[in-house]
Amino acid sequence: MQDFIHKCSILDIVSRGKIKDSCCLLCVTKMSLRAKALYTFQSENKEEINIQENEELVIFDENSVDGWLQGENSRGERGLFPASYVHIIRNRSGSNLTDHSLSSPESSPGKDLSYIHTPSTTLPSDDDDDWDDWDETSTVVEDEDPRRGVGANGHSQNPYSNPNVHYRPKPYMERQDSMSSNRKGSMVGRNLNRFSSFVRSGVEAFILGDVPMMAKIAESYSIEMGPRGPQWKESPQPFTCSVEDPTKQTKFKGIKTYISYRVTPSHTGRPVYRRYKHFDWLYNRLLHKFTVISVPHLPEKQATGRFEEDFIEKRKRRLILWMDHMTSHPVLSQYEGFEHFLMCGDDKQWKLGKRRAEKDEMVGAHFMLTFQIPNEHQDLQDVEERIDSFKVFAKKMDDSVMQLTHVTSELVRKHLGGFRKEFQRLGNAFQSISQSFLLDPPYSSDALSNAISHTGRTYENIGEMFAEQPKYDLFHMLDKLSLYQGLLSNFPDIIHLQKGAFAKVKESQRMSDEGKMDQEEANGIRKRCRTVGFALQAEMNHFHQRREVDFKEMMQAYLRQQIAFYQRVGQQLERTLHMYDNL
Amino acid sequence: MQDFIHKCSILDIVSRGKIKDSCCLLCVTKMSLRAKALYTFQSENKEEINIQENEELVIFDENSVDGWLQGENSRGERGLFPASYVHIIRNRSGSNLTDHSLSSPESSPGKDLSYIHTPSTTLPSDDDDDWDDWDETSTVVEDEDPRRGVGANGHSQNPYSNPNVHYRPKPYMERQDSMSSNRKGSMVGRNLNRFSSFVRSGVEAFILGDVPMMAKIAESYSIEMGPRGPQWKESPQPFTCSVEDPTKQTKFKGIKTYISYRVTPSHTGRPVYRRYKHFDWLYNRLLHKFTVISVPHLPEKQATGRFEEDFIEKRKRRLILWMDHMTSHPVLSQYEGFEHFLMCGDDKQWKLGKRRAEKDEMVGAHFMLTFQIPNEHQDLQDVEERIDSFKVFAKKMDDSVMQLTHVTSELVRKHLGGFRKEFQRLGNAFQSISQSFLLDPPYSSDALSNAISHTGRTYENIGEMFAEQPKYDLFHMLDKLSLYQGLLSNFPDIIHLQKGAFAKVKESQRMSDEGKMDQEEANGIRKRCRTVGFALQAEMNHFHQRREVDFKEMMQAYLRQQIAFYQRVGQQLERTLHMYDNL
Repeated sequence: MQDFIHKCSILDIVSRGKIKDSCCLLCVTKMSLRAKALYTFQSENKEEINIQENEELVIFDENSVDGWLQGENSRGERGLFPASYVHIIRNRSGSNLTDHSLSSPESSPGKDLSYIHTPSTTLPSDDDDDWDDWDETSTVVEDEDPRRGVGANGHSQNPYSNPNVHYRPKPYMERQDSMSSNRKGSMVGRNLNRFSSFVRSGVEAFILGDVPMMAKIAESYSIEMGPRGPQWKESPQPFTCSVEDPTKQTKFKGIKTYISYRVTPSHTGRPVYRRYKHFDWLYNRLLHKFTVISVPHLPEKQATGRFEEDFIEKRKRRLILWMDHMTSHPVLSQYEGFEHFLMCGDDKQWKLGKRRAEKDEMVGAHFMLTFQIPNEHQDLQDVEERIDSFKVFAKKMDDSVMQLTHVTSELVRKHLGGFRKEFQRLGNAFQSISQSFLLDPPYSSDALSNAISHTGRTYENIGEMFAEQPKYDLFHMLDKLSLYQGLLSNFPDIIHLQKGAFAKVKESQRMSDEGKMDQEEANGIRKRCRTVGFALQAEMNHFHQRREVDFKEMMQAYLRQQIAFYQRVGQQLERTLHMYDNL
Repeated sequence: MQDFIHKCSILDIVSRGKIKDSCCLLCVTKMSLRAKALYTFQSENKEEINIQENEELVIFDENSVDGWLQGENSRGERGLFPASYVHIIRNRSGSNLTDHSLSSPESSPGKDLSYIHTPSTTLPSDDDDDWDDWDETSTVVEDEDPRRGVGANGHSQNPYSNPNVHYRPKPYMERQDSMSSNRKGSMVGRNLNRFSSFVRSGVEAFILGDVPMMAKIAESYSIEMGPRGPQWKESPQPFTCSVEDPTKQTKFKGIKTYISYRVTPSHTGRPVYRRYKHFDWLYNRLLHKFTVISVPHLPEKQATGRFEEDFIEKRKRRLILWMDHMTSHPVLSQYEGFEHFLMCGDDKQWKLGKRRAEKDEMVGAHFMLTFQIPNEHQDLQDVEERIDSFKVFAKKMDDSVMQLTHVTSELVRKHLGGFRKEFQRLGNAFQSISQSFLLDPPYSSDALSNAISHTGRTYENIGEMFAEQPKYDLFHMLDKLSLYQGLLSNFPDIIHLQKGAFAKVKESQRMSDEGKMDQEEANGIRKRCRTVGFALQAEMNHFHQRREVDFKEMMQAYLRQQIAFYQRVGQQLERTLHMYDNL
């Protein structure tokens, strides 16, 4: 069972909009249950196991995580299977009898959106002490991070495979369909693909009008028409934020070690100190809340060698880029949880704010209620074309970014290996010539030998300069490309949301034309689809704006460093050339 | 038999001092003879065959070439074996009965040095029309050139094997021992190693006083004491000589094609036109004549792709370096045959001068009669130490030159391959990014895309610059290193001559001490050994002087080109950086 405990961190965090911030339930309850498979399930990933209809199973915990249960099949294989495929058999009195496929959350009607999220509010997920146990203590290298998922409809044909990018489709619980069909009388069919981001994100529910307008909405994000189409309205208080000075900290008398970063927002000027796990908490909140927005991925985790200087440097550089994107984004930068992350310096306040953010109701489908869109008419077909065009662009840009990442990584390898070696070999060979010249004393030509030896050292040094150079140019390029890989990998799912919305509009219009639906309901669907369309276009617009700024900066920085490098090499060579002047 | 015809060009030219410029005798006589093996011979090279004592052999030609015969053994193997190991069986009337092991050239007592060379004066070797047939018409790639021999006592432990450097020891005919022991009453034993360069070069004969002083010696080369020991006296008429403008020529209505070089000595200013085969003829005369002098090797032959531009350029560059070394050398530059090569512009005069050079008697051992040495006393042991020191130096320099050649060749390969490819890939990846930016029209960011595309082209161009750069720096380094590889590879044999001379001095002194030799004779040996010692030291001195000039020049030229290269790259990058200025 120990095996599963560490897998929890993977389970905790699943693709967009369906995030659990609890640790493994196993850690809490640790009691086995029996269950019976209702359907046959074929595993598709290595964490999953096959189950046969009617097979007896052992369940390690009855509480599913994002629709998955952990357990053991009759062949002794341990792993995950969809909670909705099994029926848990009660073998003690109390609350353990749970039929996932039939259970319904309607017992809490006031929170009617909870159905798109697994109920987990009873879990001690916001226990701060628990927190300290999973970032710096794990010794498992997590070489796959399911958050970096690329949709199956995404860019999987990319010629360069990136081992960091995996797609792990997650099932969702059946009841969301069964339940939503119990609500309202909508005749428009639900999406049958439970794994679709359209469904999971809550956009389907929003489009179909399943998300009621709330009485009082504190948050509001405006979309306005800009010169190039819809755009997010600028934040009234734009700011930047530095991430600096990663410092090793210890607690519990040195038993625990972690890295703390000084985070200083420009509008307060007051630094707060944050660990990677705090960034990660914030990131998960962002994924949880923001639909239709491409949330920048955090730099990847790396459990081994976590305190190595290069790794700390790399993480810092990438956190800076992540932070730059966050503060540049008119919506993300105004998020209350982000404000809390940037401002709170007090432990008690921190816990309160954390809990508040976790209880935020304006997440997923509800988040879309916060949009203020312009009145301008947009032809839906035009919007669809715009999005298709963006999709083609994003695919090609993703490919190109992958290609450039690949080439750049290879170039780093060459700088550290081949280039360095070639110049060092040349340096050694010159040194060897120089030494041979000293061997016949009357003709030892000391000055010439000395100059050649100096040339040898110069080339050895140039070899080292080649090896050092990636720190000044290629690493920064890779950092930025990595940010863009993350941003781009979100778009297939986001675009998919809009595609789903369009389909609903067409379907409802057809039904309305055939008299099978009220025109009013069809109009509602069309109106909500407009909202999603405006939001997506605003996000595309923001992406393009940042892309222009970021790539200009990236190219300029690279070229400047390259020029400086070639100049330094030239200067070194000039210095050694002068050694021959007075021979 | 056809097989052997083309091997003749290898046979024609054997290691120092034993050169035949005739074509294969087979080509002339083409008649088979029978022979009997007097001794067992084990082949040591692929051209040679084993013969057993008393075995019957077929001889393709009775005239031996440099002591070797071509033929077939009783097992049907065809190849070379030493002429002195067989007895040719006469099967017709006339001159075919030849017992190589017993034959003696004493029938021409007026030319008593001919015994160190195979008699071949009756061959039509100076027929100019015959000449045209072997340089440009051969299609065989001669990947081994026996002239580039490294003595067995030489640098064979070099960590980098150079496929161009082979050593092929050649036997010499027995009769030189049997005969010379018939001459004069010297009691000092002859060297038993017939293959020793000491014997082959005629230095043994000279040391032992077997070479009589001649009545009138037109040539004279002085050795004087310089600041760093004996040195060649400068030529009274120093000059340089350009080699330019390789031009493809045709004759016989285009059937024959060859390259002609314009050769212009500075002291006449009158160009002559020479082909590679003319250089080769001169080179063979030099090898034939000059003992104790390191004759620079000609650039290697290459039969295939001979007219390819790169090959012609490379040969030209290397002929220039060869010529520079020739004109820099106080002895070689004054050689009459060289003067003829540089001056003669008339066909008839050319043939006359060529014949005169080929009949030069002051070659090999006789050449040593032309030295005028200073009266200064030099302790022989000091000289021996000087030479030992030079030997250690030359070995290490040879190793270093080989190492640098290896590294440089590899660097050329990297420039043409890896470096070019990496930068081109980077350029392509930038182009790809640039193209993707154009795909979403409202945000096509034309100017940025254009700048990135320009950057892409710049890196593609930098890739090409890397590939071109060896033409400006590394090739010249390789040319010079190749010249020095040749010069250095001569020294083991040259040093071996001096070692042999020292041994004779010690032996004769011991014999004199024991009353077995006249003190006068021992003094004569010691005196002649001094001559060899002075000459070798002068040659060492000259080598060192040229080395200092050449390596200084080589390093400066390399560094200047490298600086220019890195500056050009920097400038290209600066130009492309400006493209981002007004975005």
